[in-house]
Amino acid sequence: MSSEFELIARHLAPGPAADAAGMSLGVGDDCALLAPTPGTRLAVSVDTSVADVHFPADAPASTIGHRALAVSLSDLAAMGAEARWCLMSLTLPEADDAWVADFAAGFHALCDASGVTLAGGDVTRGELAVGVTVMGEVPEGEALTRSGARPGEVIAVTGALGGGAGGLARWQAGERDPDDALLRRYLRPEPRLAAGLALRELASAAIDVSDGLLADLGHLCVASGVGAALTPEALPLAEGLVAALGDDDVMDAALRGGDDYELLVTLPEAHLAPARARLAAEGLALTAIGRVTDIPGVAGVADDGATGWQHFSGDTP
Amino acid sequence: MSSEFELIARHLAPGPAADAAGMSLGVGDDCALLAPTPGTRLAVSVDTSVADVHFPADAPASTIGHRALAVSLSDLAAMGAEARWCLMSLTLPEADDAWVADFAAGFHALCDASGVTLAGGDVTRGELAVGVTVMGEVPEGEALTRSGARPGEVIAVTGALGGGAGGLARWQAGERDPDDALLRRYLRPEPRLAAGLALRELASAAIDVSDGLLADLGHLCVASGVGAALTPEALPLAEGLVAALGDDDVMDAALRGGDDYELLVTLPEAHLAPARARLAAEGLALTAIGRVTDIPGVAGVADDGATGWQHFSGDTP
Repeated sequence: MSSEFELIARHLAPGPAADAAGMSLGVGDDCALLAPTPGTRLAVSVDTSVADVHFPADAPASTIGHRALAVSLSDLAAMGAEARWCLMSLTLPEADDAWVADFAAGFHALCDASGVTLAGGDVTRGELAVGVTVMGEVPEGEALTRSGARPGEVIAVTGALGGGAGGLARWQAGERDPDDALLRRYLRPEPRLAAGLALRELASAAIDVSDGLLADLGHLCVASGVGAALTPEALPLAEGLVAALGDDDVMDAALRGGDDYELLVTLPEAHLAPARARLAAEGLALTAIGRVTDIPGVAGVADDGATGWQHFSGDTP
Repeated sequence: MSSEFELIARHLAPGPAADAAGMSLGVGDDCALLAPTPGTRLAVSVDTSVADVHFPADAPASTIGHRALAVSLSDLAAMGAEARWCLMSLTLPEADDAWVADFAAGFHALCDASGVTLAGGDVTRGELAVGVTVMGEVPEGEALTRSGARPGEVIAVTGALGGGAGGLARWQAGERDPDDALLRRYLRPEPRLAAGLALRELASAAIDVSDGLLADLGHLCVASGVGAALTPEALPLAEGLVAALGDDDVMDAALRGGDDYELLVTLPEAHLAPARARLAAEGLALTAIGRVTDIPGVAGVADDGATGWQHFSGDTP
């Protein structure tokens, strides 16, 4: 790596909290050495976010850092795992110190808020892209998977839907106010880590809504060998969505919009009230939006063949 | 992800051996769930290889898959860690099924040869790049680090040097025979995992030679707070290097060429013979090339300011 890029890499060094986080050796050796907690399973996932595919290349650098980590942490949330460590691979076209400082600030702030320690990474030259590997822990046998849904259970979703699609629409319409509620949903999604932990013993299956509600519900149904009957009028809509998109597009954004990073779960009816109470303590709603059935497929919505959001580029993936 | 890319992703699914490798849940859920071995530390590292920066974009796809994994595994080797799992993030400009099948074959073959299980990954669209996160295990307190070198110890290197630079030169000269020894060194480097394990109790410090001998020796010396006196005429040269590069460039390739992925270690003199015996059992040489000193810097070579190889592009990183 050139010295120019080495300087850049210093922005990505782990903080002094690393020792306390079960990390005996971090950036600066060939590997980081981590101390997994006995009795837990290690949940691992990687997601790469590519400029102008998964996010606008000219978005504020701090939001690109936040968002790339949030997308990966959302997978830990969906497993009911406690976030512990991450590794980041940053590819960027030039060594722009100010940009990287801002990027790193957004990344580190979410690390701190989520209790995650950056354990290593690399910086390479190329088209702007951020790959984030996350590692979390979950007690043996307690992970939330996609395959546990059973007919008769309630389908529920945390928070609100359509914010990702609505925020993207606002960005594309020229909105740049970082405090705009919808834009914030798109650029700075909050991974539902606390909700995932709270739902561990109550939910029977979980997935995060990244590709769009219908698409991700479809993944969950296939993995569980079940079907679903949705109640579209029950879908919780992100604040400001009707004003931003108009009545005609709201339902499509909630059903097929991606990048919401809410948790979609199934749970026995009797677990709904206690689950709501736990999430209310986190300031988060849990809304029942349908039932698990034994008929394959998703009933209750028009089948126009479109499932899954097409991301920023209007193309996939 | 588009269905086109989902098809592609199937080439990267883990094999049936996954269950046996301490992996209770792999590709197909939000995270893979791994079972770390009690009493061990988890060694983790990530490296991203970008087309035409770290490897020629038109290299055979199987070698790109092999090489991206090898580069990351080399970091585990340098820690004395046993390779266990990996995650792969593949970014590619188009969904070319045949290319990905070949790429995956090279990747999976090295997984099998190294005892590594692919635990997850993603496929995204963009400029060709491969990010590989590796996870290995090492008994607590037995990891080889960069910081353990002590004055008076022997500096030694596994295998031979200059093969990376020599192979790249042959590629650039038009050589395309996959059995060409030097080209093979460049395109299909062999991570020294067995050597790392064998040297665990014998070496006091280790690093892999990725940036070039001088650069990596410099990293090790800084981390250990020591200096080094090299004996350049002792450097083991890759087979065919003189014929490929000519006398004038051979020493530069061995000292400053990168991508050799040999292990550079320091060890007490009394450990040299037993270390050689263990590596001989693996068919690998261990050559003494200098001494650790208490004078900062690397003595024994002309200081022309150039340290570290400039990778494929002739530019960095």
